[in-house]
Amino acid sequence: MTANILLVGSGGVGTIAALNLEAGGLASVTAVLRSNYSKVTTDGFHIKSIDHGEITHWRPSEILNKIPHYSNKHFDYIVVTTKNIADTTPTTAELIAPAVTPGKTVIVLIQNGLNIEKPLFEIFPQNVVLSGVSRVDSHEIASGVIEQVDHDRLIIGAFRNPTPNLNIESGVDNETDADAAARHFVQIYSAAGKTDCRYVPAEEVPFYRWQKLVYNACMNTICAITGLDTGRIQLAEGAVENLVRPAMNEIVAAAAAVGVRLPADIVDKMIAIDPVTAYLRPSMLEDVGRGNLTEFENILGEPLREGTARGVSMPTATFLYHTLKAIQWRVKEEKGMVTIPSRNV
Amino acid sequence: MTANILLVGSGGVGTIAALNLEAGGLASVTAVLRSNYSKVTTDGFHIKSIDHGEITHWRPSEILNKIPHYSNKHFDYIVVTTKNIADTTPTTAELIAPAVTPGKTVIVLIQNGLNIEKPLFEIFPQNVVLSGVSRVDSHEIASGVIEQVDHDRLIIGAFRNPTPNLNIESGVDNETDADAAARHFVQIYSAAGKTDCRYVPAEEVPFYRWQKLVYNACMNTICAITGLDTGRIQLAEGAVENLVRPAMNEIVAAAAAVGVRLPADIVDKMIAIDPVTAYLRPSMLEDVGRGNLTEFENILGEPLREGTARGVSMPTATFLYHTLKAIQWRVKEEKGMVTIPSRNV
Repeated sequence: MTANILLVGSGGVGTIAALNLEAGGLASVTAVLRSNYSKVTTDGFHIKSIDHGEITHWRPSEILNKIPHYSNKHFDYIVVTTKNIADTTPTTAELIAPAVTPGKTVIVLIQNGLNIEKPLFEIFPQNVVLSGVSRVDSHEIASGVIEQVDHDRLIIGAFRNPTPNLNIESGVDNETDADAAARHFVQIYSAAGKTDCRYVPAEEVPFYRWQKLVYNACMNTICAITGLDTGRIQLAEGAVENLVRPAMNEIVAAAAAVGVRLPADIVDKMIAIDPVTAYLRPSMLEDVGRGNLTEFENILGEPLREGTARGVSMPTATFLYHTLKAIQWRVKEEKGMVTIPSRNV
Repeated sequence: MTANILLVGSGGVGTIAALNLEAGGLASVTAVLRSNYSKVTTDGFHIKSIDHGEITHWRPSEILNKIPHYSNKHFDYIVVTTKNIADTTPTTAELIAPAVTPGKTVIVLIQNGLNIEKPLFEIFPQNVVLSGVSRVDSHEIASGVIEQVDHDRLIIGAFRNPTPNLNIESGVDNETDADAAARHFVQIYSAAGKTDCRYVPAEEVPFYRWQKLVYNACMNTICAITGLDTGRIQLAEGAVENLVRPAMNEIVAAAAAVGVRLPADIVDKMIAIDPVTAYLRPSMLEDVGRGNLTEFENILGEPLREGTARGVSMPTATFLYHTLKAIQWRVKEEKGMVTIPSRNV
């Protein structure tokens, strides 16, 4: 049986996900496009992929320019690959809400950061929400043109539903359903055999999310604030030892405080994960440079709050957080989302 | 008797200093100009001053485009109003060295930051070095065009000479000489009666320098890093309480550790010193925005080192410092002062 999948966010990560999902023949993908809608409607996607080769005029099964309503079409899965930008509307939960069949649709969040599932479980306490931790170097280099330069690696597992007494009230075993949904999604995603998509049990999901946060919460944010890419941050005297390493150590300590034990060498591994001479520019660095809002709340704010609530000392992360919050305020003001008193001297 | 004064750095602050010094009739100013040399040689300065009114075609007694040698002309005072940029050559001491008559010329540093006198005393252990703490809102808005929008307030006092056994070896009482030179300089500077220039005893100099640092080490640096001006930093939710106030408290604690007791309400006063709606842009914010190097070492690095060497906990200042150091490295690389390995992926 073909699964009906709605894809929200069809940029670098989302389009490769759509391609993987349809390539195996077990899914029919409806993609909701925004900025590239008219371009892709006319010409399709042009994809240059290390996993799939060069593909032109590619389209998912259906293309929409707004979120459909579940009463018109039932989706087995909604895959979300947008960023989580705090203080903006609609939130991810509000955005996808019309398309979610209550108690049925499985929501798959292929997004960075912590506690991203909480607003979803609040609105849809009887739906399954899956975690996707993606490591794919794929970008939309022009409207509808996707370049994937590194292999797709995706780790899928269920988020534990925090709703109290859920199974008793609903009469279903949500945990079993969630794990089964995660396994099924991995099967669909992997069917073409062109990607490394792995199932992990729900109890291991926090490990993989925190593991990626060690990098994202620190490297992305410090690059964004200093204007240095991942190579230059390693070359700049003292930046790794005085900024990156202390911040990463604090995230590791926060993880330990919530019960997630990361490997002893994780900080060294994360610092060296990309070769210096790749000079990668994290998307948060690009976003700040272009005057865009960033997803700093889920990337850094949530791990900081989890750690400090448990008494972990996190001075570097605290400073990074408040600096990014001030930068976010500046961008909001530049975008007219905040008004200030007129100049008067 | 007219004092021979060499002025190094004739921008917003320096040109108003030159004007004050010559206006009283007790000084003849030789100004060393750099970027505005040909403009000012041809047209003179165009000055719009809240203290002096509008003055066109103004020139100090002599204009040079390089530092003269003391064997050609003896200077009673050398007034330096340039910025102290770390890691660049020449340093202030190297720059003015040719013009300093050993044991005679009084060096007046109208500059921000801490420990700026140390390199001068190292090279000229028998010269007097004076501290100038200036609060004047004056800028060179175009080449040779100076706009002074707030009154000139200048606090002058001697730096204590740290050279051991100096008075014994030289046979002169350096401390008395230094205080006398400070009083004399104030007399010359104030003679026209258009400025608020005050003498303070040498033992009070650290107080005035640290007092100004509470503002400069924190507000200038945080504005530079976040891209917010002094008004917006107060409007951005949480920025004062989580960035500015903790940083200022740490500078106050560092001052206390070196024996400088600042008033209990100094942090509140410094936060509110400029009205929000003035939206002032500290020069460090302008410098970072324009890709210029900044004087972060004397403004922040020195108070940080003084405090931490005495066991003061300064996490916010530490983070600010290393962030500015990383930004400085980026600017150096952009200017070709640092070379990095080629891109290779």
